[in-house]
Amino acid sequence: MAQTLTEFDTIAAISTPIGEGGISIVRMSGEESVKIANRLFKGKDLTKAASHTINYGHIVDPKTGEMIDEVMVSVLLAPKTATREDMIEINCHGGIVVTNRILQLLLANGARMAEPGEFTKRAFVNGRIDLTQAEAVMDIVRAKTDKARDVAAKQMAGGLMQKIKDLRQEILNTLANVEVNIDYPEYDADTVTAKEMADTSKRVISEIDALLKTANEGKILRNGLATAIVGRPNVGKSSLLNYLTQSDKAIVTDVAGTTRDTLEEFVSVNGVPLELIDTAGIHQTDDKVEKIGVERSKKALKRADLVLLLLDSSQELTSEDQELLQATADKKRIIVLNKTDLGMKITPQELADQTASPVIAVSVLEKQHMEQLEQTIKDLFFSGIENSNEQVMVTNQRQTGLLAKAKGQLEEVISAVDNGIPVDIAQIDFTGAWDTLGEITGDSAPDELITQLFSQFCLGK
Amino acid sequence: MAQTLTEFDTIAAISTPIGEGGISIVRMSGEESVKIANRLFKGKDLTKAASHTINYGHIVDPKTGEMIDEVMVSVLLAPKTATREDMIEINCHGGIVVTNRILQLLLANGARMAEPGEFTKRAFVNGRIDLTQAEAVMDIVRAKTDKARDVAAKQMAGGLMQKIKDLRQEILNTLANVEVNIDYPEYDADTVTAKEMADTSKRVISEIDALLKTANEGKILRNGLATAIVGRPNVGKSSLLNYLTQSDKAIVTDVAGTTRDTLEEFVSVNGVPLELIDTAGIHQTDDKVEKIGVERSKKALKRADLVLLLLDSSQELTSEDQELLQATADKKRIIVLNKTDLGMKITPQELADQTASPVIAVSVLEKQHMEQLEQTIKDLFFSGIENSNEQVMVTNQRQTGLLAKAKGQLEEVISAVDNGIPVDIAQIDFTGAWDTLGEITGDSAPDELITQLFSQFCLGK
Repeated sequence: MAQTLTEFDTIAAISTPIGEGGISIVRMSGEESVKIANRLFKGKDLTKAASHTINYGHIVDPKTGEMIDEVMVSVLLAPKTATREDMIEINCHGGIVVTNRILQLLLANGARMAEPGEFTKRAFVNGRIDLTQAEAVMDIVRAKTDKARDVAAKQMAGGLMQKIKDLRQEILNTLANVEVNIDYPEYDADTVTAKEMADTSKRVISEIDALLKTANEGKILRNGLATAIVGRPNVGKSSLLNYLTQSDKAIVTDVAGTTRDTLEEFVSVNGVPLELIDTAGIHQTDDKVEKIGVERSKKALKRADLVLLLLDSSQELTSEDQELLQATADKKRIIVLNKTDLGMKITPQELADQTASPVIAVSVLEKQHMEQLEQTIKDLFFSGIENSNEQVMVTNQRQTGLLAKAKGQLEEVISAVDNGIPVDIAQIDFTGAWDTLGEITGDSAPDELITQLFSQFCLGK
Repeated sequence: MAQTLTEFDTIAAISTPIGEGGISIVRMSGEESVKIANRLFKGKDLTKAASHTINYGHIVDPKTGEMIDEVMVSVLLAPKTATREDMIEINCHGGIVVTNRILQLLLANGARMAEPGEFTKRAFVNGRIDLTQAEAVMDIVRAKTDKARDVAAKQMAGGLMQKIKDLRQEILNTLANVEVNIDYPEYDADTVTAKEMADTSKRVISEIDALLKTANEGKILRNGLATAIVGRPNVGKSSLLNYLTQSDKAIVTDVAGTTRDTLEEFVSVNGVPLELIDTAGIHQTDDKVEKIGVERSKKALKRADLVLLLLDSSQELTSEDQELLQATADKKRIIVLNKTDLGMKITPQELADQTASPVIAVSVLEKQHMEQLEQTIKDLFFSGIENSNEQVMVTNQRQTGLLAKAKGQLEEVISAVDNGIPVDIAQIDFTGAWDTLGEITGDSAPDELITQLFSQFCLGK
């Protein structure tokens, strides 16, 4: 990461979501930012503006003299900026054409189009944030619920980074002792050293285990509980879907101007984020839904964290019902006995005898006992979410994978010591674990990994 | 418009388009803005920050102490702000949940949710801009082409406002003379006065006519040329549509991250903005398109500024073709003789004998002579756009309607004078025209009109 700032050219991108809105921001970072902006700016001399000031004026095409828009230009000088480089933010009138025109002018006057995530990458390369904080930036942008935002905000504040740095320091301290003991091999140094490495490994493993425990909830908090609604035709799947996606539950509909389209599969049930898995067409009209049948429902099961299995209480169980009961047996599941308003040929008790899953009798159509269903969803969710108030959570697969790898390396150390393998051999895995943990924060991450990681970011971030 | 600033409460809204993006802005305007922001801000004391400064810190829920996001807060103090009131702009990490959470905190701490257009309305009410400039703000946000942006930018700079103010001044000067003459009725004052009013009316009418001439192009520049692709089944309508909407023509696809969905019906052909009228399903697959047939094509004609009528050159004209030729006869039209690669049973010459419309023989499939079609579209467009380099253009129906009304009132004045009707009667329409012109700029617009006008704005603007 020892790149010097002077190697970096000046990058530009539109940093607000694209669309018609009140304000859009076109952003630059790099040594030439202020100079480039000044070429287009009619107002005052931006090169003389103080840092962290906002300057009113107009963007004018320097070639044609054509006035493009009335703008406010923020001048942010290194090092106290998001990227630790000089930055310019042009707040222009929202709108696709005007925003794009300003970006094009910056590109024509010396800036280069930024890669996705390149602003955040510079913040990382220039040492303002580590990789876990960079990942938290994307998590906060993509957060579907306030709980997910909270986890991301904590990670952005450096909680996970500090935890990983502490674990690395613990390994490093032991490593230093190992080196001392190897250099001054008095008092049966090998045995002492081996024991110290094994002890440290055990301590670090138990810390890693605690982190790994948070990983699954981290994923659920971030992505929502992937929920499949399954059942045979005409059992009421689409009615339940409609009930769940009605406007007071659909996430973000309280933001005026938000189209439902984008996120309509995300609903919040008593604060629990559910990602409703679209079983190919379940969002369509009733007719179509009910034709989908058992086979398709099964597909949706594969990635489900939670299954809502619907049965028709007014009819005897069919072979299809039995098949679905079996197919979902190993899933976190709620059995929803629907259509109680049509009389009950199956009782909750009969089913409860067959299964350990909670059984809730409802009428989706008549909205009877729906609050009981919602409460059950909430209880199931929070029974699996125990550590969510922790400062530190692992939230993605990259972090989980590296933690598991480091744990494996430390287990190798313990096993080597147990088997009397020489210290300098065991030390290889011990140092390996130190490196692996460094990949999480980016201290020892290979360049390609870093490039690949930031390429998943959105443009202008 | 004589409201005093102290009557206004503090309003808040999200001012960037809603979605996942690098940065979002939550904006406040009003006396309490700085105080409210300060309640949520952990960084420095914003009430002591200088105007037009950017302040780094965190938004914290004052009730729970929970850290919501890392932000940059712009402090903008009256009067040099967009609304001429104290303003706060919170730049937070993009993302729906975090942006909404910050807005909710502002609302919980003393701000009121802004109405659509309320920021711009305050700029108007507080005298920073007139109504034509306010309308230009929306036009620039909604601009589909650079030309439309240019017209809006000029209007935002006050071109139309100044023109209207000049016309009103001219009427006012004459009115002052009329008053003088009525008060001192010497030297056959009535005749002199009447002649002066009629002369002024004629001069102003000719200026209004010049403005009205720009109205149609203003509309086309703003909205694009509404274009209908019509023809009988299997003549190649969807192939032409696909050709036109391919990525190098679709407007704004050069903005990375833009979804085609939003604006896919807007294409730019040699710089000419076309709004392709969706003839109910023409965007669908070929199969469906070709089933649409003649009847549906006719419907699309109603609002078309330009018709592209497709004929199959490899077959004789059918009765359907004849019907469409007739139905589109009074439209601005290009006849596109398609499928020349399959041989030509109809020649351009035969058709040219029947009609004054340009006839272009192409093969859409083989991309033969398509540049000739595009050039013809461009020629037709610019033959109708003569005044677009004028500083002043009329761009919407409200302005057009009021100009036409004022013109009518001035014609009444001339007719009254011609018919020897007393000056004080003719003067009523003369004063009426002055008022009507004032409605364009908002100097004499009724409150309900103003409320209605701003309600069409987007939220956060």
